[in-house]
Amino acid sequence: MSNTTKKTGRVTIPTDVDVVPETLELVKLWGADAIRDCDGTDYPEELKGVDAKVYSTYYTTRKDNAWAKANPDEIQQMYLMTPHCTATSDTLSIHLMEGLYPDMLAVNSRDDIRRWWEVIDRTTGEVVPAERWDYSEETGDVTIRAQAYHEYTVSFLAYIMWDPVHMYNAVTNDWKGVEHQITFDVRQPKTHEFTMKRLRRFIEEHPYVDVIRFTTFFHQFTLVFDELAREKYVDWYGYSASVSPYILEQFEKEVGYPFRPEYIIDQGYMNNTYRVPSKEFRDFQAFQRREVAKLAKEMVDITHEMGKEAMMFLGDHWIGTEPFMEEFPSIGLDAVVGSVGNGATLRLISDIPGVKYTEGRFLPYFFPDTFHEGGDPVREAKVNWVTARRAILRKPIDRIGYGGYLKLALEFPEFVEYVKSVCDEFRELYENIRGTTPYCVKKVAVLNCWGKMRAWGNHMVHHAIYYKQNYSYAGVIETLSGAPFDVRFLSFDDIRANPSILDEFDVVLNVGDAYTAYSGGENWVDETIVSTLRRFVHQGGGLIGVGEPTACQREGRFFQLAGVLGVEEETGFTLSLDKYNWDEHAHFITADCGETIDFGEGKKNVYALADTTVLRQIDKGVQLAVNEFGDGRAVYISGLPYSFENSRLLYRAILWASHGEETLHQWFSENYNVEVHAYVKNGKYCVVNNTYEPQSTVVYRGDGSSFRLDMDANEIRWYEIDQAK
Amino acid sequence: MSNTTKKTGRVTIPTDVDVVPETLELVKLWGADAIRDCDGTDYPEELKGVDAKVYSTYYTTRKDNAWAKANPDEIQQMYLMTPHCTATSDTLSIHLMEGLYPDMLAVNSRDDIRRWWEVIDRTTGEVVPAERWDYSEETGDVTIRAQAYHEYTVSFLAYIMWDPVHMYNAVTNDWKGVEHQITFDVRQPKTHEFTMKRLRRFIEEHPYVDVIRFTTFFHQFTLVFDELAREKYVDWYGYSASVSPYILEQFEKEVGYPFRPEYIIDQGYMNNTYRVPSKEFRDFQAFQRREVAKLAKEMVDITHEMGKEAMMFLGDHWIGTEPFMEEFPSIGLDAVVGSVGNGATLRLISDIPGVKYTEGRFLPYFFPDTFHEGGDPVREAKVNWVTARRAILRKPIDRIGYGGYLKLALEFPEFVEYVKSVCDEFRELYENIRGTTPYCVKKVAVLNCWGKMRAWGNHMVHHAIYYKQNYSYAGVIETLSGAPFDVRFLSFDDIRANPSILDEFDVVLNVGDAYTAYSGGENWVDETIVSTLRRFVHQGGGLIGVGEPTACQREGRFFQLAGVLGVEEETGFTLSLDKYNWDEHAHFITADCGETIDFGEGKKNVYALADTTVLRQIDKGVQLAVNEFGDGRAVYISGLPYSFENSRLLYRAILWASHGEETLHQWFSENYNVEVHAYVKNGKYCVVNNTYEPQSTVVYRGDGSSFRLDMDANEIRWYEIDQAK
Repeated sequence: MSNTTKKTGRVTIPTDVDVVPETLELVKLWGADAIRDCDGTDYPEELKGVDAKVYSTYYTTRKDNAWAKANPDEIQQMYLMTPHCTATSDTLSIHLMEGLYPDMLAVNSRDDIRRWWEVIDRTTGEVVPAERWDYSEETGDVTIRAQAYHEYTVSFLAYIMWDPVHMYNAVTNDWKGVEHQITFDVRQPKTHEFTMKRLRRFIEEHPYVDVIRFTTFFHQFTLVFDELAREKYVDWYGYSASVSPYILEQFEKEVGYPFRPEYIIDQGYMNNTYRVPSKEFRDFQAFQRREVAKLAKEMVDITHEMGKEAMMFLGDHWIGTEPFMEEFPSIGLDAVVGSVGNGATLRLISDIPGVKYTEGRFLPYFFPDTFHEGGDPVREAKVNWVTARRAILRKPIDRIGYGGYLKLALEFPEFVEYVKSVCDEFRELYENIRGTTPYCVKKVAVLNCWGKMRAWGNHMVHHAIYYKQNYSYAGVIETLSGAPFDVRFLSFDDIRANPSILDEFDVVLNVGDAYTAYSGGENWVDETIVSTLRRFVHQGGGLIGVGEPTACQREGRFFQLAGVLGVEEETGFTLSLDKYNWDEHAHFITADCGETIDFGEGKKNVYALADTTVLRQIDKGVQLAVNEFGDGRAVYISGLPYSFENSRLLYRAILWASHGEETLHQWFSENYNVEVHAYVKNGKYCVVNNTYEPQSTVVYRGDGSSFRLDMDANEIRWYEIDQAK
Repeated sequence: MSNTTKKTGRVTIPTDVDVVPETLELVKLWGADAIRDCDGTDYPEELKGVDAKVYSTYYTTRKDNAWAKANPDEIQQMYLMTPHCTATSDTLSIHLMEGLYPDMLAVNSRDDIRRWWEVIDRTTGEVVPAERWDYSEETGDVTIRAQAYHEYTVSFLAYIMWDPVHMYNAVTNDWKGVEHQITFDVRQPKTHEFTMKRLRRFIEEHPYVDVIRFTTFFHQFTLVFDELAREKYVDWYGYSASVSPYILEQFEKEVGYPFRPEYIIDQGYMNNTYRVPSKEFRDFQAFQRREVAKLAKEMVDITHEMGKEAMMFLGDHWIGTEPFMEEFPSIGLDAVVGSVGNGATLRLISDIPGVKYTEGRFLPYFFPDTFHEGGDPVREAKVNWVTARRAILRKPIDRIGYGGYLKLALEFPEFVEYVKSVCDEFRELYENIRGTTPYCVKKVAVLNCWGKMRAWGNHMVHHAIYYKQNYSYAGVIETLSGAPFDVRFLSFDDIRANPSILDEFDVVLNVGDAYTAYSGGENWVDETIVSTLRRFVHQGGGLIGVGEPTACQREGRFFQLAGVLGVEEETGFTLSLDKYNWDEHAHFITADCGETIDFGEGKKNVYALADTTVLRQIDKGVQLAVNEFGDGRAVYISGLPYSFENSRLLYRAILWASHGEETLHQWFSENYNVEVHAYVKNGKYCVVNNTYEPQSTVVYRGDGSSFRLDMDANEIRWYEIDQAK
């Protein structure tokens, strides 16, 4: 074991006015070197001189209702679409605020509604001419001269009169009598000027602060509440609240074609990440990225000019900053901090290029939902840490931190002790792996419509939240976040731009449901895409399809690469075809699987072509199959929720697909609950027990030599690489 | 009970040379009035003078290899498509007969292959010009100047050198040394002339025969065997074996546009009934119907001219006769006989208009697969009879019959006794209900792409065969076949031709998977269709959707009538939308259901809109829900395999959807295993126990009065309608 590890640093803790001595105590115990305030806490006077960096949250777009009220035209706006309403006569009235929380939104009829709203006959798909509808300020209704039994929607702009995050915090924590924080739009001229001054003033007034933690810049991800103040719509990647006539006019000029609300509304699907993105939406995102980056840079420059660090919180109002895109480094941020829900969201932070350091905010928050009598914060902390650790060992964040009310945590001494061990463990592993790239067995590309723009965030709707329809796919990403592969996220456009890009990879994965952006939809009609993939596999590459890979009904195929994958989905069109290939076979890929494999939601109607080797099927639905195609190999998996067993399955699948079976016993643990990571340049490797129970295993070193090992629950053990062996 | 029922008649039995006395005995015992031969049996000399009608099977297209061999250009042909083959260089060779049984088919290179074949680049969808491919007679390969990593198929014509049904019988019964019967094409000039003479000769040579049972006319449904002589492809409705350049040239002339093999090939899906039919395929079917009817009429006319009855077997070579279409009655047939697999296939026969009588061939066949030591033919017979009886009680066939080797049946005296009881029961019920329309509670339309052309055959691939992907939908049709509704099969074209046609109905059903012809696919984009359905329901009609009703992704909806049905399917595009409506409610529809309802394959990802009433959901997937829309009502069911319990569920759903709850207790059995059918005109009603166990129930008469009743297993009881009550 290394004994050079520092006992302090790389840890941020929250504080509040009522826990000054305790804060100092914890700084010492946990080795913290940074202290932060939180939404709803104040930074104590007594700690302003403490020997630690001080972070201060900074809200760019709210906490100044006076300004918002004085400049109602520059309150932030979002595009909304009413539900589909059926006309039952030649007149149809649609109440715009139906089903929306009245205090949160106010219809924007200040700007030209004929230009910025759109009434669409969803039965014909045609826009209803502006002269055929009217809006009444009194009733809040749009009344349409309609065609009976057609369905209509109204797309409209609304001012965000209560910041959705502020509203969420207020509703969730049952804050009473709190004034609704109105959002203002920094991208509009008056507020732009005001905001830069406001930032300067804030920094001037907080000289003890070292780090301005922007929460975040300008645009909240899409978050809307219903009439009962329940969450109605949430998309962590949503761009629909980043609009205003002011910026849309700029957008129009830039792209050179007229703007339509439908470019944002997208039939009501609001261009969520499951939608195969339209050209217009990609244009809009690109425009937003550039404009947001430019403006964010102004704020960062001010921060730097005034001698402070600029840190961005990857969440809340982060839309447009897109940390994996070209514009991001130009902002000049020192750091990014983000919430760590799992391994994938850890990589979402730690993989960000172009910043000096990254920080992960760990769970649980010191909030009463966990820190109450009978609560078990240690368990939550363990799950969070062990889950994230897999990913940290592949690509570490530079710091860890906690949030909430410190006072609550102090009432759980076991928790305080456990976090101390986490801090020490983090510092040790950080020292051991810093500056190296961990040993990667294979280079793997995840192929979808988004590529690097949604790196590690594939299949994510709300931040790290489970959805029945996506956990079987998100599991693949979670597995990869801590697996010894060099993982890249490729878009179809990347292939179109340079088909030989695939030659850099050993294995390509295509994961998701038919017609979603994650499997690719119409992209599989593109001759370049299918030919390139076929060539890649035929010449020796590996393809792993999960769910409904390459699906797009056309020319006699549902899976366009059925010939490569060796499987096809029965959609009713091939029932006449007799299917005889149902026998299950033992295989390298399933060698560590139990009798039952958890395919999650799986798929019911996939069948194997004649030469395919079926590994698992359930009630005549293939769940797992392999196929050789020329010199290459393909694997089909119906779904793969995250588990240690499934992680192993995917590991073996990637090895097999790339003809790497013989490399199995390198930096490898026989027991799949334990993983091995090697940092050859630093001469270290570690063995980690990912479970909350003791485990026994055989550990294989890089040269194939091995030893038995018994490990404590959650244990991580570090070893020197013995070059002699 | 009626005591006027005749003890003989309405029954056909098979015979053979080795069972003459036994045949006579059974004629008496079962009250048979017709005797038939079968494929593989001979009609005995001694029975030629028997006091019963004699049927003789007649094979129009086979059993004369001398003719076939002398006229190889008029051997029947079918269109086939090779599998998708990937080019891995600029040359690709595809062996046409790959995966096909070599003795069954012979590539037709006699006709101009440049005209009648088609090589398609399935990656681009483009036809490969004829000068870019060649066919080698020696290798049997088509060689294509290809684009590397594109997929290609070859559509080609092949002669049917072994009649598929003859081959099936030979392979199944392991016939040794049997000469393969070659098919000949009656629609071509030489064979046409020959066939008419041959028919005359046959009738002349069989003077004792009363009924010529055509098996059938000209074209076998699609049935292809693979290289191991296993069934490879089967479509009971398939038209791909009804082609030849000779008739296709006529087709071209009739429709006035050039023929393309792709019109038949359909990307390899061969226009199976799950495909939303193309205009060209509809044109081709219409052409075939007319031409087949014309030619069949010639044969029927000869039969009549020579003093015999003409009976058509609805199976095997029946393609083009389409018993529910306009042309059919013009053939002038006396009768149709068909195999009874269940209630739906019973109605497929008994509902045929334009013939003097219909006959059902019941199961089991007297074949060794059932009639062997340890076999239980009585059980099979009971299931078959009781299943069919439900449908017979709605619309009776005029006769019943059996097939196979009589000798085998005689070894099972219990079976002989059971069939006697069936024959008696059939005669009794036939007398009681003849000439009446049974009491119909509601008028119901099943809406799909096919309408009456596939009446009762919806979701059928091979005749009455189970498929995992369709039993949950076929169950609806099976239920309807014996339910007290006036059932019609409507096509989208019927609505387009006359939108007010819906006003004739109480309830419309739309049943099936997305994008299939049974749910309707692109038809749901048609403004007329969706507006008409919305109006129908809004003005008080009922809509019942099963599976993925009205599904077609467009304009923010997957279920185009989501607004009417009150449910929508999550395809990934609405994950951002929070769904709160999951509570289950008790309801009129589920009043007779147990705790668990069998939805068969069901659907996983259906959710309810806010105002919808969910009746059942499984793991946040709605299985059963109801919605009010204007004055009308809609019911969503995820799937409904046939069972007595599900029959009751659908019965109640139809009643509820049409506001008919108050009519529940009319001609009704409290116990859903028992059903009541009333024949008001004849003053009769019956109560049937559909199960193989005794049942107790309360029977409600038409006036709502009721009585308790205990019934034996399978029992049917007849009552007079007491007009005083």
